[in-house]
Amino acid sequence: MTTACQCWRDKLTDKKATYQFEEGNATMRGLLGGKGANLAEMKRLGIPVPDGFTITTEVCNAYYEVGKVMPAGLEDEIREQIAALAKKMDKGFGDAKNPLLVSVRSGAKFSMPGMMDTILNLGLNDETVEGLAALTNDARFAYDAYRRFIMMFSDVVMDLPKSEFEKMLRAKKEAEGVTEDSKLSADALKDVVKQYKAFYKAEKGNEFPQNVYTQLFEAVLAVFRSWMNERAIIYRNREKIDHKLGTAVNVQAMCFGNMGENSGTGVAFSRDYNDGTPGLVGDFLLNAQGEDVVAGIRKVSPIDELKRIMPESYEKLNEIANKLEQHYKEMQDMEFTIQQGRLFMLQTRNGKRTATAAVKIAVDMVEEGLISKEEAVMRVQPEQLDRLLHPFIPEKSKKMAIENNCMLAKGTAASPGAACGRVVFDKNEAVRVAATKEPVIMVRVDTTPEDAAGMLVAKGILTSTGGPSSHAALVARGWGIPCVVGCDALHIDIENKKVTVGDRSFGDGDYLTIDGSTGEVMLGKIPLEDPNDLTPETKTLLGWADEAKKLKVYANADNPRDAKRARNFGAVGIGLCRTEHMFMESERLPIVQEMILIAAEAEQGHRARLAIEKELAEATGNQKAKLEQKLAEHDAKTMPAWNKYHELLGKLLEFQRGDFRGILEAMQGNWVTIRLIDPPLHEFLPKHGKLFEDVVRLKTLKAVDEKAFEAALAEIRKVRGPEVTLESLTALLARVEQMSEANPMLGLRVCRLGIVFPEIVKMQVRGIMEAACDLRKNGVDAKPKVMIPGVGTVEEMRWNRKMVTEVADKVIAETGVPVEYHVGTMVEIPRAALTAGDVATEAEFFSFGTNDLSQTTFGYSRDDAAKTFVPVYLDQHILKADPFQVLDQVGVGRLMKMAVKEGRETRGKDMEIGICGEHGGEPSSVGFCHEIGLTYVSCSPYRVPIARLAAAHAAIKEKRNGQGASVDLR
Amino acid sequence: MTTACQCWRDKLTDKKATYQFEEGNATMRGLLGGKGANLAEMKRLGIPVPDGFTITTEVCNAYYEVGKVMPAGLEDEIREQIAALAKKMDKGFGDAKNPLLVSVRSGAKFSMPGMMDTILNLGLNDETVEGLAALTNDARFAYDAYRRFIMMFSDVVMDLPKSEFEKMLRAKKEAEGVTEDSKLSADALKDVVKQYKAFYKAEKGNEFPQNVYTQLFEAVLAVFRSWMNERAIIYRNREKIDHKLGTAVNVQAMCFGNMGENSGTGVAFSRDYNDGTPGLVGDFLLNAQGEDVVAGIRKVSPIDELKRIMPESYEKLNEIANKLEQHYKEMQDMEFTIQQGRLFMLQTRNGKRTATAAVKIAVDMVEEGLISKEEAVMRVQPEQLDRLLHPFIPEKSKKMAIENNCMLAKGTAASPGAACGRVVFDKNEAVRVAATKEPVIMVRVDTTPEDAAGMLVAKGILTSTGGPSSHAALVARGWGIPCVVGCDALHIDIENKKVTVGDRSFGDGDYLTIDGSTGEVMLGKIPLEDPNDLTPETKTLLGWADEAKKLKVYANADNPRDAKRARNFGAVGIGLCRTEHMFMESERLPIVQEMILIAAEAEQGHRARLAIEKELAEATGNQKAKLEQKLAEHDAKTMPAWNKYHELLGKLLEFQRGDFRGILEAMQGNWVTIRLIDPPLHEFLPKHGKLFEDVVRLKTLKAVDEKAFEAALAEIRKVRGPEVTLESLTALLARVEQMSEANPMLGLRVCRLGIVFPEIVKMQVRGIMEAACDLRKNGVDAKPKVMIPGVGTVEEMRWNRKMVTEVADKVIAETGVPVEYHVGTMVEIPRAALTAGDVATEAEFFSFGTNDLSQTTFGYSRDDAAKTFVPVYLDQHILKADPFQVLDQVGVGRLMKMAVKEGRETRGKDMEIGICGEHGGEPSSVGFCHEIGLTYVSCSPYRVPIARLAAAHAAIKEKRNGQGASVDLR
Repeated sequence: MTTACQCWRDKLTDKKATYQFEEGNATMRGLLGGKGANLAEMKRLGIPVPDGFTITTEVCNAYYEVGKVMPAGLEDEIREQIAALAKKMDKGFGDAKNPLLVSVRSGAKFSMPGMMDTILNLGLNDETVEGLAALTNDARFAYDAYRRFIMMFSDVVMDLPKSEFEKMLRAKKEAEGVTEDSKLSADALKDVVKQYKAFYKAEKGNEFPQNVYTQLFEAVLAVFRSWMNERAIIYRNREKIDHKLGTAVNVQAMCFGNMGENSGTGVAFSRDYNDGTPGLVGDFLLNAQGEDVVAGIRKVSPIDELKRIMPESYEKLNEIANKLEQHYKEMQDMEFTIQQGRLFMLQTRNGKRTATAAVKIAVDMVEEGLISKEEAVMRVQPEQLDRLLHPFIPEKSKKMAIENNCMLAKGTAASPGAACGRVVFDKNEAVRVAATKEPVIMVRVDTTPEDAAGMLVAKGILTSTGGPSSHAALVARGWGIPCVVGCDALHIDIENKKVTVGDRSFGDGDYLTIDGSTGEVMLGKIPLEDPNDLTPETKTLLGWADEAKKLKVYANADNPRDAKRARNFGAVGIGLCRTEHMFMESERLPIVQEMILIAAEAEQGHRARLAIEKELAEATGNQKAKLEQKLAEHDAKTMPAWNKYHELLGKLLEFQRGDFRGILEAMQGNWVTIRLIDPPLHEFLPKHGKLFEDVVRLKTLKAVDEKAFEAALAEIRKVRGPEVTLESLTALLARVEQMSEANPMLGLRVCRLGIVFPEIVKMQVRGIMEAACDLRKNGVDAKPKVMIPGVGTVEEMRWNRKMVTEVADKVIAETGVPVEYHVGTMVEIPRAALTAGDVATEAEFFSFGTNDLSQTTFGYSRDDAAKTFVPVYLDQHILKADPFQVLDQVGVGRLMKMAVKEGRETRGKDMEIGICGEHGGEPSSVGFCHEIGLTYVSCSPYRVPIARLAAAHAAIKEKRNGQGASVDLR
Repeated sequence: MTTACQCWRDKLTDKKATYQFEEGNATMRGLLGGKGANLAEMKRLGIPVPDGFTITTEVCNAYYEVGKVMPAGLEDEIREQIAALAKKMDKGFGDAKNPLLVSVRSGAKFSMPGMMDTILNLGLNDETVEGLAALTNDARFAYDAYRRFIMMFSDVVMDLPKSEFEKMLRAKKEAEGVTEDSKLSADALKDVVKQYKAFYKAEKGNEFPQNVYTQLFEAVLAVFRSWMNERAIIYRNREKIDHKLGTAVNVQAMCFGNMGENSGTGVAFSRDYNDGTPGLVGDFLLNAQGEDVVAGIRKVSPIDELKRIMPESYEKLNEIANKLEQHYKEMQDMEFTIQQGRLFMLQTRNGKRTATAAVKIAVDMVEEGLISKEEAVMRVQPEQLDRLLHPFIPEKSKKMAIENNCMLAKGTAASPGAACGRVVFDKNEAVRVAATKEPVIMVRVDTTPEDAAGMLVAKGILTSTGGPSSHAALVARGWGIPCVVGCDALHIDIENKKVTVGDRSFGDGDYLTIDGSTGEVMLGKIPLEDPNDLTPETKTLLGWADEAKKLKVYANADNPRDAKRARNFGAVGIGLCRTEHMFMESERLPIVQEMILIAAEAEQGHRARLAIEKELAEATGNQKAKLEQKLAEHDAKTMPAWNKYHELLGKLLEFQRGDFRGILEAMQGNWVTIRLIDPPLHEFLPKHGKLFEDVVRLKTLKAVDEKAFEAALAEIRKVRGPEVTLESLTALLARVEQMSEANPMLGLRVCRLGIVFPEIVKMQVRGIMEAACDLRKNGVDAKPKVMIPGVGTVEEMRWNRKMVTEVADKVIAETGVPVEYHVGTMVEIPRAALTAGDVATEAEFFSFGTNDLSQTTFGYSRDDAAKTFVPVYLDQHILKADPFQVLDQVGVGRLMKMAVKEGRETRGKDMEIGICGEHGGEPSSVGFCHEIGLTYVSCSPYRVPIARLAAAHAAIKEKRNGQGASVDLR
């Protein structure tokens, strides 16, 4: 079916639907796709490339516009190009004596490896196959090419199951008693062709197409269709590629790597994609066609083998690789075929690489004078650095794994880093389990583009077949997922979800640990460790990044260990030190709990006391005496609780002073932003559920069975302490229930704690300042900032700041050490941003708490959203990304812009404003923070390198766009 | 102590600290206070007023500025004024023979009745009292005046306990065998004076001041001090009066109402303050001084008595009342004294009145040609209308109360409306109990300004003494609190918190019901009813209001009864019809629960089915067959749940269609805005706590005691139904726990429900449209609007609107009845406002849900905030008002302004934008809604009249300011 109207053509550039390779060049990626543009460029550079032409990406879009049918007139233009090609090759398309065979390949603007479909050997039919046999004097070769073509065409164009074709081939091999395809005789292959065609007819109802133009046109349409298949869409979503770009179609004269022992085909990289070492690496298959390499079916040889077997071709290839690198100034990933000793290049593109390689190549290329430092910085994507900080298996874990007999097998190390998780065997299961936050290891015989959705969510990938260029390896490296391939000791039964390794086995849901840097596979949950430092190349690169960036990068760290790690990773301050984690430590928790249970009574009593004192200050005579009496009575009643409260706070002060001392010392010379207590106090109390259960159980038993009651109580005492009774538990339960909240996220927390329980916060401030003054006295440059959480009104800020400065100035006066400190707030609820101009009259700095700010701006609870509606929202494209992972620049971002603008209008354009939500380490969010002019981003220590690089990218992009911050600060 | 510096005087208007009455007029309220300005005005009108002078409010502020001491030079100016006054009166201040006595009274710009202190008879000492006795030839009178002065001065100026003085007087009366003060002999009074002075000396350490200037200066300072006493501050906070206005001090020559049977004193209103009837009403006491009337100590006579006893004085008073009304064009509240047959006016001011009276007086005055309609509208405060809608005791309740012997006693009906609540005896208890949301009835012998804090939170006030002009009555009427006074059948024992009435008694915490319209007092909780209609005067006034206002007023109503009531109250549409209340009705809840428990499974299955169908639509050949097979298998597995789900939804559809039919019919011709389901579904499930307890109990018992287990199960079955088992309860508990959320307010609710559970929402839309189409077919003008709750992204709105219109258009097509409908959204989370321009591309109207919008803008949970930190915040002045009661115009208001501006930029300036949060009926918030240009406010039916009046006030104020909306719509 075709359309009658040719109006689609008017929209084409120059009204041209096709370009011969000679007509194009590398700058035409958008029109010709990456593959087509690079083939043209290679042609231009004089590199041997089989002739051919490209149908442009615009035609693909036209195909969708006209209703997914062949655009009118396109067939004629293709016929003309084929005629020209045939003439060039001195062959005829469909010519029974001297047939022109072509490959038909997709090629989009951005590389989507293995995501789309390719057809080789097109132009073969019952007649031309004989011609090919005669011409090459090799019937085996000709019929092998024909059976390959029939299978590919049936699969890709006609949607017939490939497995059925493979089954027939396998049966034939068994019948013939051979194991390799290449050992099948011409007659056997003829018979396979007959079977293939018969199967085709049975399934489709008509004969396998003999008209070569029908073959070609159907293949072109199939490539267009493949642009919108599920795996291509998933890939583009993952890589954020526009769905409207379309794919080009490359039609190219075939050359054959399967024309005997002086032929072959392979994939080569101009540098090592794994570690970046200069020099050719890659895989090579003798006497084979290209898809055999990529599919990982046959065991490939390293490219070094080629050097031994065909030194001339190797030298030629090496020469071309160098030429291409010099030309593109990028590491190249090339496909080549050697037809009877003659080398043809079939593709070149910028090569995918591991993060380690990306960094090394970028740094090396600067040293080689190929690229600038700035370009090197831009060559590494911030997300990639995450891979450099992958967990690894420390020596002690490995030793333990060996001692416990956990070592299972060793495969090929295909993508570095260690991973541990539950075994899953298919993509749906992977997605399901990953949604429960369980780490997942995907185990397959091999992977195909169909598995993309599952691979995306996996922590690690393990296959029993394939080499370092197999689909699994390529994808895993691209996405930075640890991967082991070709682990042939594994016998994988996908159907029954079981893997046997010698006499051991494991299955669905079992824990497995893999090491993608060594290829080791271990049974069970082996403890992993996070790295503590960066490689020298990474340090070099990040040094250049630091030169380029404007944003400072701080870290979120709650203890000296994390603070030190953050410094190693390049943090120049602490943007968020949470104090509540310190309360949770086991030796402190009982004190904290006791303190909390008495806090309300003590603070209320104290507030009442202050009220009486105030009256007393203004009273005279008789009234004064009465009030003095009242105060004495009040004190008699309330002082015991107040004293107990302060006794407990005093104990906590000891701990906190030590905490702050450690972290201030670790970061000496840099600001440490300490946030005062933030979560609802009931978070520190025993959980209601278990407590309620204990009480109900005890009460129930007490009424019917004294002995059972005593036994149950004894049990509970083991957990809750020897002194608990039913009465004490009942009382505790009552307090826990009294303090519980319907929506704790919006309850008595953040700065509201400081107002309702000022003594707790005063204790914290005293801890900070005593630590800082003492350090300073000892020559350590302690630089504390006090951050008030969750301020929503300037009055809250005023109240809290007054309290903080009173305590701090008192400590300074007591110690006689003048430590500089600042008091600011987190902007983490909308009202803080909406009134930032006012809040800034009292706050010296702002730090965006975008976790909470996103919660209240969207009205989503982070805990609840992920398990209820966010997956549906992402699935239905209502949200483009989880707003707790990627900053919502439109809504939350607008509030941030308002706060930046109005805060600085009040306090001056140098007012320090940062971000300490988890978005502070997410590259696109860091870019936004640069654009709106923040002073710093603060993120977890492991994301500091990412943030440094992302900040540099943002600054360089801005420079290259030749403009200032592109965000309108309305 | 005085200050040396006179610089304070430079700040005074004309550098004058004092004004003789002759120098002032009514426009000088700010400077002279209300009382001083009106005394001057009366003087100007030729009305008999004792001479005197006023110390200005500016001097009060100077007193606070110079450090709460006598400003330098003020004493001299006062001495000069006193000299002038003495000359006018032909007396001498401190003159032993012919002493000038004065009153010293406070008088602020705005009337604060009883809130501040007054001293009478100043100028008496041991010498002048004798002169007064000689002059009047009445030693009894002179010594009575002296003992009153000592008591007042000691109490007000010197802070000695008044009760001690009363105790001495009472003892004397007992000793003399008399019951009334006026029956005490001169000698007895002399003795009382001696005792008073002795007590004074014992307490204060020095003699009672004999120097009359010392008396005067101390009194002036006491008045200044009283401006900042606790009760004055509370009153000003309540009435939103600026604390910086200060009070004036009026020093006036005394005239005496206690000079025998041809003397007296009283309070008169120019119209009835209770119901607005024209003509003098008031109270009168023969042979008494003014404070006796206000204090409610002696039983007063109605003003009509005066007509009988002293017809000339009555006529004169009536004449003056008319003159003042004509002059001020307002109902007057006047104080007068008759000294030996001669009438003096001591004060006039605009009279406080009940809401009923306010409305009637305003309407009458328009008819009398005194004021314009617009002025009448402005004369009634919107909050006052709330009083007109006070609950009442319906006949059946009254009958029931009588039958059950609940009638206790009858007092004076002092402030209309019925109230029911728990008895409290003091202000602190009142505040404490009211904070728990329990209604409170405050019971006192009488009330004093000290009780203000308690009266403010009470639902009703009951006293055993006092008349309709007593403090309790005045305050209750002013604040619209139902009140019964003078109920002398009650014997109140404040100390023991017990009340005895004949042989019955009640106490602290017992329920009591009072009817302030009849004076009836009933024991127990008598069912009250809310009124269904407005009085004719109110309708007239609100008709005028409607002419003036620009905002439309809609109502929030969930059922036909409320809708009808709202129409009666003037609502011209429903702005919020909540659909979830309908789910809670007892016959429906089991169906709803069953539906919810199956919903997730059914919807997930359906989503999976849609995914397969989508693939299938694009598949061909073999692939198609496979997908068809997959679909069949999927259906076999998932259809039972899907069918059950739809069976239950079908039952709910029947109910919902009826619900919507009723409400659309009740509001025919007006828009009914129906909000789709809003709360988290788990709110409809059994509560976790009790369920968990039942399960734990049963499990515990099952393990130890089979019999006890059976008994417990039987018990539980009585509540949960006969079919429940431990297993079924355990399963139910698991589902309830699975569906529970950490922060339900931010969880799976609002429009997110429609996306995750579309079938529920589709059922609702079908119900709405089937009802509307059917009504329209029957000639009823049903006008439905569908409101999507909680939209935060335009994508959510798009998704939901598409779903709604698909169902709605389908119903229209099915029925063939073209009903017009609109689809809009609630703007109730910050992101909706921040992206309003986008959201408006899909939303036809906006309605601000300011309850939720305030929650997320502040980050406060409404449920948790009130019981935890909001009281502390109000106490510490961190919040001026609870943002859930009074709209936060700064923060939340800014979001609203953004949404109005940007929504209308997208959809045109006529885009309908309203508010349906509870702020929609709060007058200051309504004013804000007018200013920012909303189309309508929607509130509960009872607040509709208030909103209509508030909207008119806003429009008139805007007109009077001669400008457009004063809010900057940045």
